[in-house]
Amino acid sequence: MINSNHYMHPARPGVCFDFMDKTIHTKLSKPFTTESGHTFSEPEVAFKTWGKLNKSRDNVILICHALTGNADADDWFPGLFEENGLIKRDEHFVICINVPGSCYGSIGPSSINPETGNPYQGSFPEITIRDMVRFQQQVLDELEIKGIEAVIGGSMGGMQALEFAIMDSRVRAAIPIAMGKAHTPWAIGISHVQRKAIYNDPDWNDGFYNRESPPECGLANARMMAMLTYRAPSDYEQKFGRNLQDGSDEYQVESYLNYQGEKLINRFDANSYVILTRAMDTHDVARGRKNYKDVLGKIKIPVLIVGIDTDLLYPVSEQKELHELIPNSEYQEITSPHGHDAFLIEFEQLNKITKKFFEKLKTEAI
Amino acid sequence: MINSNHYMHPARPGVCFDFMDKTIHTKLSKPFTTESGHTFSEPEVAFKTWGKLNKSRDNVILICHALTGNADADDWFPGLFEENGLIKRDEHFVICINVPGSCYGSIGPSSINPETGNPYQGSFPEITIRDMVRFQQQVLDELEIKGIEAVIGGSMGGMQALEFAIMDSRVRAAIPIAMGKAHTPWAIGISHVQRKAIYNDPDWNDGFYNRESPPECGLANARMMAMLTYRAPSDYEQKFGRNLQDGSDEYQVESYLNYQGEKLINRFDANSYVILTRAMDTHDVARGRKNYKDVLGKIKIPVLIVGIDTDLLYPVSEQKELHELIPNSEYQEITSPHGHDAFLIEFEQLNKITKKFFEKLKTEAI
Repeated sequence: MINSNHYMHPARPGVCFDFMDKTIHTKLSKPFTTESGHTFSEPEVAFKTWGKLNKSRDNVILICHALTGNADADDWFPGLFEENGLIKRDEHFVICINVPGSCYGSIGPSSINPETGNPYQGSFPEITIRDMVRFQQQVLDELEIKGIEAVIGGSMGGMQALEFAIMDSRVRAAIPIAMGKAHTPWAIGISHVQRKAIYNDPDWNDGFYNRESPPECGLANARMMAMLTYRAPSDYEQKFGRNLQDGSDEYQVESYLNYQGEKLINRFDANSYVILTRAMDTHDVARGRKNYKDVLGKIKIPVLIVGIDTDLLYPVSEQKELHELIPNSEYQEITSPHGHDAFLIEFEQLNKITKKFFEKLKTEAI
Repeated sequence: MINSNHYMHPARPGVCFDFMDKTIHTKLSKPFTTESGHTFSEPEVAFKTWGKLNKSRDNVILICHALTGNADADDWFPGLFEENGLIKRDEHFVICINVPGSCYGSIGPSSINPETGNPYQGSFPEITIRDMVRFQQQVLDELEIKGIEAVIGGSMGGMQALEFAIMDSRVRAAIPIAMGKAHTPWAIGISHVQRKAIYNDPDWNDGFYNRESPPECGLANARMMAMLTYRAPSDYEQKFGRNLQDGSDEYQVESYLNYQGEKLINRFDANSYVILTRAMDTHDVARGRKNYKDVLGKIKIPVLIVGIDTDLLYPVSEQKELHELIPNSEYQEITSPHGHDAFLIEFEQLNKITKKFFEKLKTEAI
């Protein structure tokens, strides 16, 4: 049902989508039920693909996005799409799916609740990392994907990649970057104070805010806090030192953080921020299963675990632990002054590491 | 003018204060002018002393307090006052002075502005670490202190201890703990997002808030953020793991952070929080001087620099740098899972390290 240029929706054979390098906005043909028990009868989904699906429908690379990301992986993961990058459009069929709870086209707090005719906003149900995986599985099922060469993602995307390795037998390899087996209490705390900044905004109104006057100050403050955990102190030192912003008594770093906060409120929804940070807090491979050693020990596919030497939020000890506990895994480290965000910056290293892993997979497959 | 049990104020010979182990609230007899040029004509001061001043008035240990600290050093630095602690009341005269800008008795935003008859609040002038030193110097001058055996302090207290070593020739040794030569841009960023949380509180009103309804949510949120930099991830891991608070879907760490926020608003003023975090941001031994290498290289007294292996906010690289640049210095490290706050917790190590340093000083003096 998929040809070189068009995507024929399996459940709506008459509907034809322009297919490559474009974000597709559609609806899943089956309902989606969250772990918490909420059912979306006609869930919206946004995804983007690159390259062609082969006949055996198994040359798939699935890219999972992070907290404020979206389906436009070529936009936020550009280095992987470059000529010398990991992704070969003539070889791979690449797909990136916006996660539920987000605000970039898949069901989220801004979607209309058919029961009320209004957006869900504060009534949007809890979403877990596993919900994200299950939602994406439904998309992949509808596209009749038979095999997944690799799932790759960093941060929240890495949590999904790891859960995909546990939950989906189609996955032949996984590359989780800059995350761990579970969200640590410190990382939960970081999420919590950010949500609190949003809740404290007088415009918040328990999530049922006026869409003309959303809780911008709270969301901006949350983002500013987050930026201090996404970038390493060394990054701030190199960029700003103790310089003052021209003509003011404000340090450049203060001005930069203000700017980062302002930038996010123009592109992200406060309810989504709350839903997705909570989803990250639920990340725990052991939840409802045996124990993490058992769960990780049962992953049989090759897993490339990537850490960043200056990552404060998910320090390399977490990735090294995954490597110790996942039998067929290897650990590689990105060296960077940038901290956690390095997975969105250090493409030369990331391409080198991931391409080598892909070559090894090929050799072993022969 | 000082005898064993009473403190006779030098400028008011008739006034007699109960002297030992009690916080004294008085006024300086001379005006105090900040670096920014604001003059307080009758500055209030709160300080506490322990032990007896010797005849040569030079057996002084000066303790400098941190951001939300006060003159009651035996309360927040109890380990040093224990029987086996650094401080020997029969040997030392110990003093701890509340810094200007704070809310524990010395001039601060809650003090009455004699020109208006109202509290300064948002009109309180900028305070620098050097202002804190100069203010304390005036107190020490009025007490006719001739020599200071050692200045000790952690965090903001350490910044004062270092500046004392640079600025006051009475100081014979200094023990700055868990800080560096200047506030780094990352640390400034941490301060900035906390202040922003306060500014975002609708009750803030540019600092001129109704004292019956202060910006509590903002201050609590700021404190919660701070707690994530004061305690190391390992501390949160040990204390809370991923446990939920009984009977709720809230993680224990979330509940703990809420509690820490609530606790601070009952004892601290939002304007003081803004003033003192800004003071820390101004900390830079090079400011208005030659350059930091020159400034630190000219410190001739023995300096014991103490780092904490898990300190995120002021990592040991900053203390090691001080040690490299201060000629007569030694570096010691506290090993702790607690992070920055370890200087208020690991008293066994701190006593051991500081007592050894004191012994060495004595030996060298003989």
